[in-house]
Amino acid sequence: MTIDDSAVRSEDIPALMRRIGAEAKAAAAVLAGASTESKDEALRRCAAALRDRRHRIAAANGKDMAAGEQKGLTKAMLDRLALDDGRIEAMASGLEAIAGLADPVGEVMAKWDRPNGLRISRVRVPLGVIGVIYESRPNVTADAGALCLKSSNAAILRCGSESFHSSAAIIDSLGHGLALANLPVPAIQLVPTRDRAAVGEMLSMTDCIDVIVPRGGKSLIARVSAESKVPLFKHLEGICHTYVDAAADLPTARKVVVNAKMRRPGICGATETLLVDKGVAAAMLPPIIGDLIEAGCEVRGDEAAGAIDRRVVAATDEDWDTEYLDAVISVAVVDGIEGAVDHIARHSTRHTDAIITEDEAAAEEFLGRVDSAIVMVNASTQFADGGEFGMGAEIGISTGKLHARGPVGVEQLTSFKYVVRGTGQCRP
Amino acid sequence: MTIDDSAVRSEDIPALMRRIGAEAKAAAAVLAGASTESKDEALRRCAAALRDRRHRIAAANGKDMAAGEQKGLTKAMLDRLALDDGRIEAMASGLEAIAGLADPVGEVMAKWDRPNGLRISRVRVPLGVIGVIYESRPNVTADAGALCLKSSNAAILRCGSESFHSSAAIIDSLGHGLALANLPVPAIQLVPTRDRAAVGEMLSMTDCIDVIVPRGGKSLIARVSAESKVPLFKHLEGICHTYVDAAADLPTARKVVVNAKMRRPGICGATETLLVDKGVAAAMLPPIIGDLIEAGCEVRGDEAAGAIDRRVVAATDEDWDTEYLDAVISVAVVDGIEGAVDHIARHSTRHTDAIITEDEAAAEEFLGRVDSAIVMVNASTQFADGGEFGMGAEIGISTGKLHARGPVGVEQLTSFKYVVRGTGQCRP
Repeated sequence: MTIDDSAVRSEDIPALMRRIGAEAKAAAAVLAGASTESKDEALRRCAAALRDRRHRIAAANGKDMAAGEQKGLTKAMLDRLALDDGRIEAMASGLEAIAGLADPVGEVMAKWDRPNGLRISRVRVPLGVIGVIYESRPNVTADAGALCLKSSNAAILRCGSESFHSSAAIIDSLGHGLALANLPVPAIQLVPTRDRAAVGEMLSMTDCIDVIVPRGGKSLIARVSAESKVPLFKHLEGICHTYVDAAADLPTARKVVVNAKMRRPGICGATETLLVDKGVAAAMLPPIIGDLIEAGCEVRGDEAAGAIDRRVVAATDEDWDTEYLDAVISVAVVDGIEGAVDHIARHSTRHTDAIITEDEAAAEEFLGRVDSAIVMVNASTQFADGGEFGMGAEIGISTGKLHARGPVGVEQLTSFKYVVRGTGQCRP
Repeated sequence: MTIDDSAVRSEDIPALMRRIGAEAKAAAAVLAGASTESKDEALRRCAAALRDRRHRIAAANGKDMAAGEQKGLTKAMLDRLALDDGRIEAMASGLEAIAGLADPVGEVMAKWDRPNGLRISRVRVPLGVIGVIYESRPNVTADAGALCLKSSNAAILRCGSESFHSSAAIIDSLGHGLALANLPVPAIQLVPTRDRAAVGEMLSMTDCIDVIVPRGGKSLIARVSAESKVPLFKHLEGICHTYVDAAADLPTARKVVVNAKMRRPGICGATETLLVDKGVAAAMLPPIIGDLIEAGCEVRGDEAAGAIDRRVVAATDEDWDTEYLDAVISVAVVDGIEGAVDHIARHSTRHTDAIITEDEAAAEEFLGRVDSAIVMVNASTQFADGGEFGMGAEIGISTGKLHARGPVGVEQLTSFKYVVRGTGQCRP
């Protein structure tokens, strides 16, 4: 099952994708009835295969790296693309960790009896076939495939063209593991062509893909959102806020804000905008800004912030709607919870927003009124992560309100059905 | 707040719909924080207003009926459109029943603590703004509006043009009830124009409508599905199956099959196809077919069924994919559970499918392998209903797998958010 672009020329893309879709659907029907043990065995065998074939994977990655350098990819992009022994081992142990998670499929989520004797239960079932469209990180191939497998979903993976050879080598290993566990190899498929038409096909395959998870930059998500007829689990951007309330404890605010912005400025849960209550801004902003600057962060702010601290660069209107993903933060002075909630309603992407306060009533008001997937009090927005939530690995974070919201782990990759057990009941 | 089509001419439809959307969003923000008591009071006051204004509603309905007769609506359509004192009272008591349901909003669905001391909870929140697009039954105006209100969602209702005056009179009463309970009147809005362009606007209002529920015939659902950029809770059709297994109890099979088809042949949970195991078909089909024919049902079947019972009319390929919604059933003889599951996979619309059997292992295999929203053993498919499930009123039945599946009641009209309470935790 060596994947080779050139083999694709022999059939057209729509026919290729229909075949992949049909094979995924057939695999999904088998996975729906697969035991927890066989899925976990497959995951462990996939992990072993990744380790066994690490030289092959590294060689394939070498091809991608050489092509990437020639193409002039930035250093950051090349770093995301690179695989070494350590990263391959991390993928393998990631699969083993997913094998260790509880199996969500078959869980009886609720059960009740009706007066007429009907026994009703709501039982967790897989979604079916999940499409994942991602960019350069080749480890997504293993992570996403494994999360789908654990939740009994078939996966159709479309990697970025930069990581095509690396992903193909990884898929080859996963297929080996699936076969050893007697599960269908097409349970995890890679789209075997870099032709962009394949993405267009995926986005219209409503008959055989149940949900698509786009993972990547803003332009990828925007394109997929505009075109897709298949439902998406997605987040457009993470413009997260941390609001320092009048009743904030200053040491807590200082350490949490710096962590929320600077621990890893490039992740979606990083705080992009700091809001401070006007009553305490004069006292609290200078030390917080000092910490941020010391950590290497550029601070842009509104007039009020600039008047309090001269190190603040004037922000433009655009700043409030910008996901910097970098060592830059915007600061606005607001009028209490009301002002903070209002600013967040206008500028948040409803990913994660936090309040720093010692006032319980203020905390509850903020938690209740801010309509984001994750709302926090006295904690760093960088905790917005499936692993940090104790949910195990996640395939992404959803900012939609339907079905999956927040971290999307194995449980969120399931649906349910109602099972009704009777003894001959007829409806009057 | 009298609704008058002619008033609309003064502004264009996109501007009108933008205004309605903005008012709905503002109302939704208020509803999200509204107490259970105030919502229930509003529902009871809405019920009282419907009763008080029954003459006004009947007069408005008279206008619609006269126009409908002139337009040449069928008797069945006119019956769906008609409102009398009894039906108005049914609407009012329906609202009181919804007031009596448990409030899903604010429910802590799950909570857990992390080793670092973070306390995480998943809390039920409203979806936001729900659009409902429906056809002639004016009672949907009250039912759908009330279900949205109970779940703290604002509703934008688009009724069929035939019931425009009736729906406007009902909305007027609901607005009165909302105002008396100090809740925003735009919490339940009717699109104040019969212009079809308004539907197109609704289907693209992703910024202010969170989900659309289309209720009506196949052509409405198909059009909405093709066009909508807003997620839908929908079912296209209910092609439901009842499979009589080799281990079925014949008296159970006879009474359940007749009820599943003939109790009300026109509802989405009515069985459209009867499957019978080939080993018992000769013994069981004739009495079941006799019962169906006696109840006034036409029976169409495959060759094997025709060979067993001459009263069976030959079915065409089309029959297996037809939702009759009438006193017609199709019958196929299949090879055991395998054959039944295979037929259902090819022809079911994944609404509700049932097995009649005394063999527990056979029942469990069927329940596990049939991928429909509702799977049943030894019970009539006509139980596929939120009320019969004990969920209270439903806004419809969803055959999608995402978010809401099966009956869509107040709980299904909610989403959730994660609330994280910390004491200054930073992510390492």
